[in-house]
Amino acid sequence: MKALAVVSGGMDSATLVHKMLADGHDVALVSFDYGQRHVRELQAAAQLANELELRHDIIDLRCLRGLLKGSALTDDAVSVPHGHYESETMKATVVPNRNAIMISIAWGIAVAENFDAVAVGIHAGDHAIYPDCRPDFQEAMQAALRLGTDRPEMNLLAPFVSMTKTDIAALGGELGVPYAFTWTCYEGGDVHCGECGACQERKEAFRDSGVADVTEYAA
Amino acid sequence: MKALAVVSGGMDSATLVHKMLADGHDVALVSFDYGQRHVRELQAAAQLANELELRHDIIDLRCLRGLLKGSALTDDAVSVPHGHYESETMKATVVPNRNAIMISIAWGIAVAENFDAVAVGIHAGDHAIYPDCRPDFQEAMQAALRLGTDRPEMNLLAPFVSMTKTDIAALGGELGVPYAFTWTCYEGGDVHCGECGACQERKEAFRDSGVADVTEYAA
Repeated sequence: MKALAVVSGGMDSATLVHKMLADGHDVALVSFDYGQRHVRELQAAAQLANELELRHDIIDLRCLRGLLKGSALTDDAVSVPHGHYESETMKATVVPNRNAIMISIAWGIAVAENFDAVAVGIHAGDHAIYPDCRPDFQEAMQAALRLGTDRPEMNLLAPFVSMTKTDIAALGGELGVPYAFTWTCYEGGDVHCGECGACQERKEAFRDSGVADVTEYAA
Repeated sequence: MKALAVVSGGMDSATLVHKMLADGHDVALVSFDYGQRHVRELQAAAQLANELELRHDIIDLRCLRGLLKGSALTDDAVSVPHGHYESETMKATVVPNRNAIMISIAWGIAVAENFDAVAVGIHAGDHAIYPDCRPDFQEAMQAALRLGTDRPEMNLLAPFVSMTKTDIAALGGELGVPYAFTWTCYEGGDVHCGECGACQERKEAFRDSGVADVTEYAA
């Protein structure tokens, strides 16, 4: 199978790519610059592609930064929340309709180039905060895109949709994913802040899975 | 109701905007530069917005030009087909997943700014060639985007989805839409070529509706 994987540069998408390669699939990568504060993650995505010698396109959506406003990730007026990942305050990091936008563009490229699937790293730990990471969205989006492109056999793959981030870290540990080269932090710093909700979730996933956390944290 | 209308600069979207205003809605416009050969249509969209004094954002997706390839509209290697609009050759003008991409971005902006709906000018004359203009796609896409943004009450409006282009021209005639300022031709010229499938469809809509065709055609 030939699949186009949407990769952020974080742990989940890095594990996704390694898993798909381990399963014998032909994989290309696509990332999105939507003006996120933590654009540093795109360097991690590029590094992943480079290490694995895979094709990688970065789609420039920076023109959306001023339009998809109100999110801590794209609006300088909104602070990145610290504290527990599943808390109510993390909703400030929702970028409205982000996954539908990225998946739609990836699907268009996949159709143009005769890929069999688009793959995303959405997982169960994101369901509470991000509606566009839930299985009902994934199924509905796949149905819509199949209709919109007359490709009833194409798939929107989300192999981690029922797994926790700890499950993903455990799988990545088995697969030997080089997590030192992934980026999670929502702040725009040079090293992981260690305090934002995303960093806390990263720390917990390593701790609970027993996989060594080689990340450099500021705090 | 506050609606964000996706406008190309053609007859259908111009009529859509005039109809929504006539129905008493608050309307803002959004257009997309996806590297289309007939980028001239965006000038028409800007003129529409300017005449009506409506907000108009143009989203720059030119980075997709080399990726959504194989279409006569975005790939210089593919010629714009001439002949009847519904003929098999017009399939060369399909840009894969174009409407899902444009609708997803518009929906994200609409959520960020608390609009009640996104509106598109898809119509029955496009169903044969473009799968992303069909009612089943529109309904499935609305369902997916509602789930992906937790907005069960938001709508993807397509008031022309069961109308022909002739019906639309007739409605526009009643509403006084200034069709001289709309752009249809798929070729990149200064005036409408009069020969491509899109020009032929435009001519037919005016002829069959009895609305005067004030378009300047090269042929």
